[in-house]
Amino acid sequence: MSTLVCPPPHFTPVPLDKSYRLMNHGPTVLISAQHAGVSNVMAAAWACVLDYGQATKVTVVLDKSTATRALVEASGRFALQLPCVAQASLTVAVGTHSAKDIPDKWSRFGAQWFTAPGDTLPLVSGCVAWLVCKLIPEPHNQQTYDLFIGQVEAAWADERVFSQGRWHFDGAPQELRTIHHVAGGQFIVAGASVQG
Amino acid sequence: MSTLVCPPPHFTPVPLDKSYRLMNHGPTVLISAQHAGVSNVMAAAWACVLDYGQATKVTVVLDKSTATRALVEASGRFALQLPCVAQASLTVAVGTHSAKDIPDKWSRFGAQWFTAPGDTLPLVSGCVAWLVCKLIPEPHNQQTYDLFIGQVEAAWADERVFSQGRWHFDGAPQELRTIHHVAGGQFIVAGASVQG
Repeated sequence: MSTLVCPPPHFTPVPLDKSYRLMNHGPTVLISAQHAGVSNVMAAAWACVLDYGQATKVTVVLDKSTATRALVEASGRFALQLPCVAQASLTVAVGTHSAKDIPDKWSRFGAQWFTAPGDTLPLVSGCVAWLVCKLIPEPHNQQTYDLFIGQVEAAWADERVFSQGRWHFDGAPQELRTIHHVAGGQFIVAGASVQG
Repeated sequence: MSTLVCPPPHFTPVPLDKSYRLMNHGPTVLISAQHAGVSNVMAAAWACVLDYGQATKVTVVLDKSTATRALVEASGRFALQLPCVAQASLTVAVGTHSAKDIPDKWSRFGAQWFTAPGDTLPLVSGCVAWLVCKLIPEPHNQQTYDLFIGQVEAAWADERVFSQGRWHFDGAPQELRTIHHVAGGQFIVAGASVQG
């Protein structure tokens, strides 16, 4: 287990009805979960918004081989968080190696975690957004498609890049931009903003 | 109905086992479908990969209010295609207005379509990737979550930006980059490539 650290200074609540906008642009995510004192984190490129407003939901694909999936199924909760350019190597590392092979996965790859007030769910330090979700059990989807649905309970973002319900990457440090996996550790970085 | 045009010159097949990489980085998509001589197109930010390899599948959320959804349900097929920067306004237009209100939606907004050899499904001209999908009927998901699952049957990309199973935006014209919707017509453009 890595060191438990304090919430980062720019950790700022995002209203539930704006939280879908954290995920709308298709970022790669880190998924963390905890059960019976064991916590884990993995990476996933296949996460997506499913609904918005007060009913904001997300989907995420969790392979049966992952240790994190078992924690999600046992605890009924998980967090999605958005790694940034500064965490590209960490994202590849936690997405490639399983806690089944490396029990000290968090500390081995230098991941630090913190908790939101009143919660014990591990949130990954250094990310630029966090969504805490309650699992909506759908056994057929989970078994047939490895597809999990989560109801978003609370969300936060790094206020340097997300504020007033929008991403504002253009004026922020390059290393805080979200990353979007293509294949083999290659990511496309969130670029300029355009109005359609 | 808009003019039926020829396939664009850079329209190049993508092997099925590489087709998930077209969607991996979370682009906004246009969805087209056709039934009984009626075709339509809409935009969706909530589309995602569900599986890869020969079993490549995608999910997409289609609201009950959309005319395109009815065509997907009736025909059991749809195409996902990736609009680029040059099509940001078109994407907002077809994502905002329904064919229920504007029956000549295609031509009203200047969308042109073409068909792949041996198929009649309308594909939107000017996009940078296309995935033709067969609907996997999942009535509970469709009714409860507006969630549709498609099995990818064939895929193509604009070879100027996708080749050898990877996106190569850095050396290509800016207007060919994919767009990723945030909210209210604001898109984040696919940016630089980084290796994690």
